[in-house]
Amino acid sequence: MIIVMKQDATREMAEDVARRVEEMGLKTHLIVGEERTVVAVIGDDRRKDREKFESCAGVDSVVKILAEYKLASRETKAEPSVITAHDLKLGGGNFGVIAGPCSVESEEQILETARLVKAAGAKGLRGGAFKPRTSPYSFQGMKEEGLKLLAAAREETGLAVVTEVMTPHHVDLVCEYADILQIGARNMQNYHLLQAVGECHKPIMLKRGASATMDEFLLAAEYILDQGNQQVIMCERGIRTFESHTRFTLPLASVAYLKSKTHLPVVIDPSHGTGHANLVPSMCSASVAVKADGIIVEVHPDPANAKSDGAQSLTPAVFEQTIQECSKIAEVLGLTMS
Amino acid sequence: MIIVMKQDATREMAEDVARRVEEMGLKTHLIVGEERTVVAVIGDDRRKDREKFESCAGVDSVVKILAEYKLASRETKAEPSVITAHDLKLGGGNFGVIAGPCSVESEEQILETARLVKAAGAKGLRGGAFKPRTSPYSFQGMKEEGLKLLAAAREETGLAVVTEVMTPHHVDLVCEYADILQIGARNMQNYHLLQAVGECHKPIMLKRGASATMDEFLLAAEYILDQGNQQVIMCERGIRTFESHTRFTLPLASVAYLKSKTHLPVVIDPSHGTGHANLVPSMCSASVAVKADGIIVEVHPDPANAKSDGAQSLTPAVFEQTIQECSKIAEVLGLTMS
Amino acid sequence: MIIVMKQDATREMAEDVARRVEEMGLKTHLIVGEERTVVAVIGDDRRKDREKFESCAGVDSVVKILAEYKLASRETKAEPSVITAHDLKLGGGNFGVIAGPCSVESEEQILETARLVKAAGAKGLRGGAFKPRTSPYSFQGMKEEGLKLLAAAREETGLAVVTEVMTPHHVDLVCEYADILQIGARNMQNYHLLQAVGECHKPIMLKRGASATMDEFLLAAEYILDQGNQQVIMCERGIRTFESHTRFTLPLASVAYLKSKTHLPVVIDPSHGTGHANLVPSMCSASVAVKADGIIVEVHPDPANAKSDGAQSLTPAVFEQTIQECSKIAEVLGLTMS
Amino acid sequence: MIIVMKQDATREMAEDVARRVEEMGLKTHLIVGEERTVVAVIGDDRRKDREKFESCAGVDSVVKILAEYKLASRETKAEPSVITAHDLKLGGGNFGVIAGPCSVESEEQILETARLVKAAGAKGLRGGAFKPRTSPYSFQGMKEEGLKLLAAAREETGLAVVTEVMTPHHVDLVCEYADILQIGARNMQNYHLLQAVGECHKPIMLKRGASATMDEFLLAAEYILDQGNQQVIMCERGIRTFESHTRFTLPLASVAYLKSKTHLPVVIDPSHGTGHANLVPSMCSASVAVKADGIIVEVHPDPANAKSDGAQSLTPAVFEQTIQECSKIAEVLGLTMS
Repeated sequence: MIIVMKQDATREMAEDVARRVEEMGLKTHLIVGEERTVVAVIGDDRRKDREKFESCAGVDSVVKILAEYKLASRETKAEPSVITAHDLKLGGGNFGVIAGPCSVESEEQILETARLVKAAGAKGLRGGAFKPRTSPYSFQGMKEEGLKLLAAAREETGLAVVTEVMTPHHVDLVCEYADILQIGARNMQNYHLLQAVGECHKPIMLKRGASATMDEFLLAAEYILDQGNQQVIMCERGIRTFESHTRFTLPLASVAYLKSKTHLPVVIDPSHGTGHANLVPSMCSASVAVKADGIIVEVHPDPANAKSDGAQSLTPAVFEQTIQECSKIAEVLGLTMS
Repeated sequence: MIIVMKQDATREMAEDVARRVEEMGLKTHLIVGEERTVVAVIGDDRRKDREKFESCAGVDSVVKILAEYKLASRETKAEPSVITAHDLKLGGGNFGVIAGPCSVESEEQILETARLVKAAGAKGLRGGAFKPRTSPYSFQGMKEEGLKLLAAAREETGLAVVTEVMTPHHVDLVCEYADILQIGARNMQNYHLLQAVGECHKPIMLKRGASATMDEFLLAAEYILDQGNQQVIMCERGIRTFESHTRFTLPLASVAYLKSKTHLPVVIDPSHGTGHANLVPSMCSASVAVKADGIIVEVHPDPANAKSDGAQSLTPAVFEQTIQECSKIAEVLGLTMS
Repeated sequence: MIIVMKQDATREMAEDVARRVEEMGLKTHLIVGEERTVVAVIGDDRRKDREKFESCAGVDSVVKILAEYKLASRETKAEPSVITAHDLKLGGGNFGVIAGPCSVESEEQILETARLVKAAGAKGLRGGAFKPRTSPYSFQGMKEEGLKLLAAAREETGLAVVTEVMTPHHVDLVCEYADILQIGARNMQNYHLLQAVGECHKPIMLKRGASATMDEFLLAAEYILDQGNQQVIMCERGIRTFESHTRFTLPLASVAYLKSKTHLPVVIDPSHGTGHANLVPSMCSASVAVKADGIIVEVHPDPANAKSDGAQSLTPAVFEQTIQECSKIAEVLGLTMS
Repeated sequence: MIIVMKQDATREMAEDVARRVEEMGLKTHLIVGEERTVVAVIGDDRRKDREKFESCAGVDSVVKILAEYKLASRETKAEPSVITAHDLKLGGGNFGVIAGPCSVESEEQILETARLVKAAGAKGLRGGAFKPRTSPYSFQGMKEEGLKLLAAAREETGLAVVTEVMTPHHVDLVCEYADILQIGARNMQNYHLLQAVGECHKPIMLKRGASATMDEFLLAAEYILDQGNQQVIMCERGIRTFESHTRFTLPLASVAYLKSKTHLPVVIDPSHGTGHANLVPSMCSASVAVKADGIIVEVHPDPANAKSDGAQSLTPAVFEQTIQECSKIAEVLGLTMS
């Protein structure tokens, strides 16, 4: 941490700041510049409340040097983590494909979709049983019944099941049926939920919140890791910006950035990231090209009759073409599709 | 809802869309323009899945006309709701002042702050016992012990206690001690939590999520109202934008907008909305000037030693001056400070 | 500037960075922390290309300490600048009111509006003669004819004329007629234009670009000041964010922030800042409450027939009420309306 | 256009709106819904001022159906435009590579870079002679001298020269030397400049403004097209969002969106779009994967000594590897690199 003093701050003010830092068990270094004095802090201040120095007399601003996450960091673990569930492999050169409907709607719908996405090359099956919906009047999911149908689809196809858990007291229930638990974007900072999934033994797919910074995203992962669950998959699904022709803005540069900071696999969700089915295929290809560790894509046998997210769901035929194109790119880049 | 067809859509495509709408029990009106055909939908389509029409052949876009919230709407209840807790009154010409530390840190700290903010004119006391923190390594609050100290402060000062609840299974506990339950910005779309507080009998202060649109904010309120709890206070606390000199961007135009759409009171949080103590006082005055129904402000007896949010906490002396200025403005505008 | 090295950077890399800094005529200070080494730079690095150090081997990031603007800074001139044009005064406790139509449309329209806004208390008259329009097919303004009509309105009413200049070769022409030249938001970083108005002797109202940071905004002012024109008025008119219920998001906290950094007066434009006439009056009041130095408001005798920006224009009657409320707030805050 | 009336609007209000629309020479259709009345407008209202209806009594909102751009639209020209300069081809299955330094700094620097990028596969040479810089104290470019050096580099290498023009009175000068004129992001809505380049006979590369919507971007192109210059290249270079780990946020979904709306070629600028050299290579690959029509990339022989944008410039060696990877992807997708 670097504490920058105001131009008119006195020497005493800087020394007072330094004293407060030293009371925290850290060392300081006072640098008197031509126009500004800065207090450089030496030592691990990651777990200290750094912003509060802004309230000290004469302080202009506080610049953090060390990121607060540690377990998620490449500095802690340099080699990439590989996460596996049935035939699905994410990370370390493995590009995993997860596909399926937004919501589980019926036995027929989920089984049909599972068969079709498997045939097209998917190794994971997505499908919401508990659905977070913006409006209380929208379809809220089939709940446990939906979980059972997902398990039945896995039974038949061997696909790994990825499904969302929305509240701590459902974690055990969802664990019974799912292979990977998803934390939705709206719950990225639902800390009780993060701690609850941190205690279970299944991989967790953590979606980035729509206005989360990268540090906040990595710290949300840190909550899970800190409880002992090391299997966290980071999922970039787009951020909220002024763009209105897409549902969210999907920044693929997140992949290279995250991979420079964390050992955890990074997956892209081009369906939520764009919100329109016609934009999804090329963003799937681009996800391979940026060397993400996988994609999670909404596919529905009949999008116009989907109970949720029809606008962004691919038909099985388009999905199949999309995966073919992804495979070609993966091949020339030396990635293994799974 | 208006469904806009693509320029090259055929008549049959438009008719197919119309048929699907009619199957939902709604009427349609086909308007053939010079360049575009649109399908106008007549009837209450609020609870229908409207986006899915985007997946129908030939559809360009879907324009919603009716907002999805209903109980929160002024169209349902025209007169403003007034929410009361002890001497605190919010709404209907009453401007309520809630103040206190970010976190409850000790008996001495909370009692001292309560006395000081009361003397300055506050009628509500804020203070976090359960603290949602970005990092798992930050101070997480005093929990039930903190709730007890808040209740003790109310005992002594008569201030109404406003404190956050973070997870459904804490709702009963927090209800025992608090007068108003706060849902934090990070939990604005934690639907299980919204439903849980919708079942209790205390007023709920719902903070706007950092990337929530107005419709999403009002629909989050709708979740609470829909469970039977009519006492919801909307709290604008700033949105995430590219601005980095403030912690969030605080759009005061939200007040006039929300008041045109909902009967619920609207409160401003200039502390989180700016993140810097030097920007808070003038934004408090501005909150009165835009005729918000109240403010919630962080005040700490010693900001430089606060366990959280020191940078944005006012000292008691600055808070007192701030409230004096607010009072003058309230008076000339005919608002009653409470 | 502080140059932060990567965790795995060698001592040599840090020394190489230090050497490069010293070649620029600056001193350095190497601080070896437990986890990171940082190179602190001592001296005025404001005019150096600081980002390029990111390209040096082993560098993680570069943190700027000194803002690049100097002439605009309070550190250069502590007392607030007051800018005057006829009876209009902005700054130093003077709250100036500028009002008028988006575009000059006809002699009758501009004269009628001028009389009405003057009667309501305005001291400046706005009105576009050269209009920057998003579409090439929209009304582009009356051009020189419009300037003449503005001058005629000043003749009759004594109001100071504020009007936009869009391109360098119009600067002389606009200077002939206008009292204050406006640089529109879209041109905030049109540097040739900034330099051209920097050479004239009229005050310049510089509107913030819709995605400009505060530093960029102040550096745009610096371009003008650097040419010798010291009369720059900073106008906050809203930024582009994900909010769609307003045309832009108007952050009033900009006022206190800018006033802490610059001596230049700060004016608010609540018309463009919200885009909807029903949100304008309360944001005018709030502009007084945050102690801005003035407002610039769109008023049209018949908004529904305006040639541009009808949706955000006040009627003269609403404008009059608005200014009455502003006056009351100004009075209790000790500001002088002008 | 659809004009939505407020719930409490009277029949007369809707009829008054309809009458005003009809006075514009358009037809209307009144649709009385259960809760709302809407006035549907039939006919080409693209060039009408549509927002002003918001000021009519009883109007809630105005929904535009037809986009305002016409010449840029696929509805006007369905087949993709191909733009050619020397060996550089953009559009219609041709993926063009433009590379070079941010600024022309010296004869040696530009010639060396030109040779290196050509060897790596580039067909266009970028390099700024007139540099728009945020600070007036930064290097402003070599101006005409820089243009001459670019022409000399073309002489030697055959690369097409792409360089920025910042103000209308430089258009002729830049046309003398450049093959493609670039309009920078800051000038995307500098309408006099757009009109000036609309009159010249060279292709124009139009960069998206950092806060421009897609409609604004396409309308800026329309300004150029409307002057008679049909050779416009749309360049997505990232938008400003809350993300701070990248300089801008680069939404690659823009490619598929733009291609669905316009016949003009779409090029990606991953250097400005990310701001950090380590994020550029994978975003180049992704640009091919989304089937953009080209990339424009900053390459500098010695980034740590660049006079501008060193942080985001690739070294020639990294650029070479990047283009090799791009070529492989282009090949499997059937695109022709040029």
